[in-house]
Amino acid sequence: MTAKTNHQWRLVARPVGLLKESDFKWTEEPVPDISDGQILVRNLYISLDPTNRMWAMADTYLPAVPIGDVMRGGAIGIVEQSRNPKFKEGDHVQGLLGWQGYAVSDGKGLTVLPPMPGVPLTAFLGLFSHIGLTAYFGLLDIGKPQAGETLVVSAAAGAVGSLVGQIGKIKGCRVVGIAGSDEKCQWITQDLGFDAAINYKTEDVRESLKQHCPNGIDVDFENVGGKILDAILSLINLRARIVLCGLISGYNSTEPVPGPYNFSRILVQRARVEGFIVMDYYNRTMEAMTELGKWLMEGKIKYRIDEVEGLEQTPRALNRLFEGSNIGKLVVKI
Amino acid sequence: MTAKTNHQWRLVARPVGLLKESDFKWTEEPVPDISDGQILVRNLYISLDPTNRMWAMADTYLPAVPIGDVMRGGAIGIVEQSRNPKFKEGDHVQGLLGWQGYAVSDGKGLTVLPPMPGVPLTAFLGLFSHIGLTAYFGLLDIGKPQAGETLVVSAAAGAVGSLVGQIGKIKGCRVVGIAGSDEKCQWITQDLGFDAAINYKTEDVRESLKQHCPNGIDVDFENVGGKILDAILSLINLRARIVLCGLISGYNSTEPVPGPYNFSRILVQRARVEGFIVMDYYNRTMEAMTELGKWLMEGKIKYRIDEVEGLEQTPRALNRLFEGSNIGKLVVKI
Repeated sequence: MTAKTNHQWRLVARPVGLLKESDFKWTEEPVPDISDGQILVRNLYISLDPTNRMWAMADTYLPAVPIGDVMRGGAIGIVEQSRNPKFKEGDHVQGLLGWQGYAVSDGKGLTVLPPMPGVPLTAFLGLFSHIGLTAYFGLLDIGKPQAGETLVVSAAAGAVGSLVGQIGKIKGCRVVGIAGSDEKCQWITQDLGFDAAINYKTEDVRESLKQHCPNGIDVDFENVGGKILDAILSLINLRARIVLCGLISGYNSTEPVPGPYNFSRILVQRARVEGFIVMDYYNRTMEAMTELGKWLMEGKIKYRIDEVEGLEQTPRALNRLFEGSNIGKLVVKI
Repeated sequence: MTAKTNHQWRLVARPVGLLKESDFKWTEEPVPDISDGQILVRNLYISLDPTNRMWAMADTYLPAVPIGDVMRGGAIGIVEQSRNPKFKEGDHVQGLLGWQGYAVSDGKGLTVLPPMPGVPLTAFLGLFSHIGLTAYFGLLDIGKPQAGETLVVSAAAGAVGSLVGQIGKIKGCRVVGIAGSDEKCQWITQDLGFDAAINYKTEDVRESLKQHCPNGIDVDFENVGGKILDAILSLINLRARIVLCGLISGYNSTEPVPGPYNFSRILVQRARVEGFIVMDYYNRTMEAMTELGKWLMEGKIKYRIDEVEGLEQTPRALNRLFEGSNIGKLVVKI
């Protein structure tokens, strides 16, 4: 029996509105011994994503986390013990290891991270993770941007949005980002090369979009929904494509959330709205990683990690995604 | 100078809510002489379509009808005089001839109807018209139904919906129609071969859909929107396709109309919602006509004309589309 202690955040209530710390319980138990075929992973980083909120709330594309279970969450950890021939001590692994200090796993669904000299481990939570895959396949496979077209990205300073805009620039689009602070707007235009940015908290989004998209909108990479999507729909071109990647504006609502009031624009403009979930593309991971890695080496793409320290901060930190106070990929460092 | 009189319905106000007769003015003027290159057409039938409402209201995919102009409308007429070599007296022609007894035209946008023995003229307002094209291309090109899939059609006893369901059956789908009376439900199941029908005025649409679509919904041919679309979205399968052909439930609203409350289902189910307007397919007319004609001859497809007599009835008759009191294709016989 090991003497180590495992701290865990367990889901104890389905969240209503913003997540509350009382929806989770901080528990403590000894790190268990492992059996044949299992590994013991010490978590190093937990990935915080808007979709965590959905997992806590209801059955969606994955079943809801059962009440009482350790909260589901993507993480990177290091293998401390292995009784599974596919893993050895010291391997860095990634997968749904949960909001806890240690995870026991049979290895299913875990990926061993390849050593990449010069690339920090956190890159595997941002660029080389579901985040990078989401941006890559969502934009290119669903959005199909053509050079010269105008791409709008909402939540543009977020983990996914900031990559989407940069890939749009690589593909020759005019890229306009929508974000929630002047600091974010400055980052995406000055550091990431977006053509324009709109602060939705201080600007009239529709008026600013009209100004920054003089030729209308051809592709919308939608992370937000609500009023921002309505403003975008009012300006879409014929045969526009709306990549429906997230609807974060509605995730914390306690009331039924109406769809966009400009829904009929989809009809009039013969536009296509298509839902997208990255796990459908996991079999094409290498294709995206290769391209993203190349662009990183060429200096064409940048990413940013927004690090919160301490497992005990996890539930509170998740709310930063919904308050919009993170810039880049939000992670918890344990 | 001819002594004949031309009666016309002119648009005099942008409709708010249901169309009122006072939005139009009944005018009378002599039938004008024609110049070189022109033809004089005596209208025989006017096609009434939900889209007429949009044309009267605002700029959409076509500019709004200018106030004071003869109301835009599809029609079939007979050429009474021709000074255009492409047309001869006695030809039946079809096009946007307007809500009037006579139209003078330079022939642009008009089609001469081929003589089809045994096929009544009104077939060119239903099956062999924009109606048939809408059903054919909307379902097959956008909806892409596969044999064994479940297709739901709203406004299923309407001109388009009744054809969509029959084409769905030809393609091997399970077809469930939603309509507004028991008479309509009986017609589409007993005469047209739909597998099931739901009377949305007397049934809980979602519960009935659950019952009649035990394998979920793969394709939705959407003519209605609103609560019916919400019920459908709640039951769509992975990668469902929603052909957005009409949103008639909202056309007469005087308030902003919210999009579907189940909008997030599009994301979760990775569904595709695509707007469709038939005029984008006019260059493929012959392809659809050939297939539709073949199915008609084989007895695989039926259509029904709902005829109102008298040009003076036109504005009042149009409202029948929004009240749902027509079965099949609504036309005015002059």
